[in-house]
Amino acid sequence: MIRVQVDGAQPWVSGEALRRLMSQLEAAQGRLWDPKEDEGKKGWLTWPEEDHDGLWQEVEATATEIRSRADVAVVVGIGGSYLGARAMTAMLRPGSEISGSRGFPVVFAGYQLSEGELLRLMDDLDDREPALVVVSKSGSTLEPGAVFHLLRTNLERRYGHQARERIYVVTDPERGALREYAVEKGYRRLPIPPDIGGRYSVLTPVGMLPAAVAGIDIRRVLTGARRGWEECRRLDLWANPAILYAAARHLLYLQGWMVEALVTYEPRMADFSRWWQQLFGESQGKDGRGLFPAFLHYTTDLHSMGQFVQQGRRLLFETVLDVDGSSAPQPANGEPPDPRAVIPDDVDAASAYLAGKRLDDLQEAAMAAVMEAHREGGVPQLWIEAKGPGEELVGELVFFFEAACALGGYLLGVDPYDQPGVEAYKRKLKARLLSGPVAGA
Amino acid sequence: MIRVQVDGAQPWVSGEALRRLMSQLEAAQGRLWDPKEDEGKKGWLTWPEEDHDGLWQEVEATATEIRSRADVAVVVGIGGSYLGARAMTAMLRPGSEISGSRGFPVVFAGYQLSEGELLRLMDDLDDREPALVVVSKSGSTLEPGAVFHLLRTNLERRYGHQARERIYVVTDPERGALREYAVEKGYRRLPIPPDIGGRYSVLTPVGMLPAAVAGIDIRRVLTGARRGWEECRRLDLWANPAILYAAARHLLYLQGWMVEALVTYEPRMADFSRWWQQLFGESQGKDGRGLFPAFLHYTTDLHSMGQFVQQGRRLLFETVLDVDGSSAPQPANGEPPDPRAVIPDDVDAASAYLAGKRLDDLQEAAMAAVMEAHREGGVPQLWIEAKGPGEELVGELVFFFEAACALGGYLLGVDPYDQPGVEAYKRKLKARLLSGPVAGA
Repeated sequence: MIRVQVDGAQPWVSGEALRRLMSQLEAAQGRLWDPKEDEGKKGWLTWPEEDHDGLWQEVEATATEIRSRADVAVVVGIGGSYLGARAMTAMLRPGSEISGSRGFPVVFAGYQLSEGELLRLMDDLDDREPALVVVSKSGSTLEPGAVFHLLRTNLERRYGHQARERIYVVTDPERGALREYAVEKGYRRLPIPPDIGGRYSVLTPVGMLPAAVAGIDIRRVLTGARRGWEECRRLDLWANPAILYAAARHLLYLQGWMVEALVTYEPRMADFSRWWQQLFGESQGKDGRGLFPAFLHYTTDLHSMGQFVQQGRRLLFETVLDVDGSSAPQPANGEPPDPRAVIPDDVDAASAYLAGKRLDDLQEAAMAAVMEAHREGGVPQLWIEAKGPGEELVGELVFFFEAACALGGYLLGVDPYDQPGVEAYKRKLKARLLSGPVAGA
Repeated sequence: MIRVQVDGAQPWVSGEALRRLMSQLEAAQGRLWDPKEDEGKKGWLTWPEEDHDGLWQEVEATATEIRSRADVAVVVGIGGSYLGARAMTAMLRPGSEISGSRGFPVVFAGYQLSEGELLRLMDDLDDREPALVVVSKSGSTLEPGAVFHLLRTNLERRYGHQARERIYVVTDPERGALREYAVEKGYRRLPIPPDIGGRYSVLTPVGMLPAAVAGIDIRRVLTGARRGWEECRRLDLWANPAILYAAARHLLYLQGWMVEALVTYEPRMADFSRWWQQLFGESQGKDGRGLFPAFLHYTTDLHSMGQFVQQGRRLLFETVLDVDGSSAPQPANGEPPDPRAVIPDDVDAASAYLAGKRLDDLQEAAMAAVMEAHREGGVPQLWIEAKGPGEELVGELVFFFEAACALGGYLLGVDPYDQPGVEAYKRKLKARLLSGPVAGA
């Protein structure tokens, strides 16, 4: 269940302001759900209601194969090709600062160009039996392309011809250089539907294969996505959280607010914030428009950015993503909590008022205290309450944010599906490399 | 060597604009170095030239003791009490996605309130022999206070009375509840000088003890800090990088730019960006003023925020922190690079132009391509070139940014040493907890 609250964003998001926006919201919602509008780019919209059982069986079988052949999966991708997978694994298989994550290890590469980082990863992989999962829609992005070929060569040095049994490719089913290469080499392939763009692709094999490898029940993720689909189809401002969220942030934008900070309180949600940042930044940041999407991890960042939020230049509003549960096991009714999380009595004088409280209590009190303090500081607050079991919740959240993002793009008058500004850098980089010297020359 | 370049920030940071600012810059520099101004808050300024050899011997001996008694150090702190230590260990002992970091493991806790995260950390510590390093200047901050007592109790369950030999406290040498508690319990203590505030304290035992435990040569860090001190004392705009950086970002601010994004290209610098964010956000974000300090990790974020930076609403400028070296071992002159980092010839058709290049070449080309693309997109760019061996460089960078931050606060007309906005949330939180129910009640 996702519920958007706008009480904390008064007077900017008033009932009157929302009513005045109503005809635009109806037009945006109509455009979003009209199959003829933006045809060929909205595969994500109908995806949760379609039957892809054959595909999911293949994804699950592939994941089982990877887990049986390898002891670590290295997912090679950048942008939309890794952010969603990382968000899901961090949220649903969280570890600690020592162990990284629980369950079958899934790590990521190819999302940057650090040579030192890659060589260290290769050193660590020497002690493991890795599989590679390469994710690239176009099959032509530089970072994952370069890193894939380096990791592949390293596997071939070690496993010879059998390296091919450790390499899996998720790419366009019909075109692209990576697809051709995979066919030629005989790698197992999974498709990215051509009508679903990178940043809207997490619920396809792009996100689902890494999730399944990590041990996540992807059928439950899809159940949640279907629930999100049902909620977001409604043409009712108050029953459709995507419309309300899109409307509220649009009203704040129109009234001069420039930065939207997605606020989370659980470390396992940090990567979800990065997925959200790409979705909104790339979909709406164009033609000189758009909110700057930032993220803050509380209470951590209250001790770094809290001062600015409370008293700095007034340009930022907060969107609190209040996800159910602390990821700590919750005691049954009437049972005591884990004693390891209850502050003992023999504490120092400054901490005496904490004795007998559990950490979850402190977190909850902090959320309420921050809401109050920042409201007094004149910071508008949207609140997204998201309840339910994790696997379903992440599917529901993904669809909700995608729908809100596309709606918001229409309200803003931009194309939520292109990214011409990214291409500028890609073109310049390629031109430089085509004319530059080679290593050691 | 730190060099600030403002060529990419034309026409906003012109020679003429800098000249017009000169008298303000001289006044700010005079105020910064006048021992009577902000007396009792500027211990950090004279710290690198003072002789603290006895203290460093004690820090090194303590680090040696921790490494001999434990196999992991858990540093408990929040804000300025952990960001600097984390920045240094990540920068100088980088690992991979699999191994976290190289050398003696130093992990962090007490910087948030997630119960699930803490219980998972405790589970992982059950298989280790941990030591705790608790860092808190006031000794009264809620998050590290609560988490310290929970981790301490967990150690006492396991080690009984001997737990005290695994607990180390870095706090004010004269006052505070944590100090009293440590004296009573007999924990080994190290001081935080009373005249150095939290976010300016990384070069004291706050950052240096964790760094030494991680195996970093802290004497070299201090050598670098001393070099920064020498550079930043000069009253010469072009020879003093702190004045030039403070002036350039102030001019951008005055001309309406609202977000400063610190751009790094190496994953090992990500935590340094967080340290920088706290320093500037907390020192200058007050009285309705200040740039919003953001950070971007390229080339990763080019595939998420690149679109916004290139074509979104014009409010952001970039400060590129160009740190020497990729953290990959560099071949001697004439020697070939590590073959594992050179793109092979048997690649797919889309990657053919990469064959024979090493990853470092691609990174360098990306930096140049981004500079060009974003300049064309109308994004002002400051460039901070930082060269030299890592240990010294981090010390030099820390002092440089601290000096620039204090200078910038004076230019902005705010107090760079207080944080009244953080106190608002702390007060409200305490009030709530004093009146709230206890666990299980």
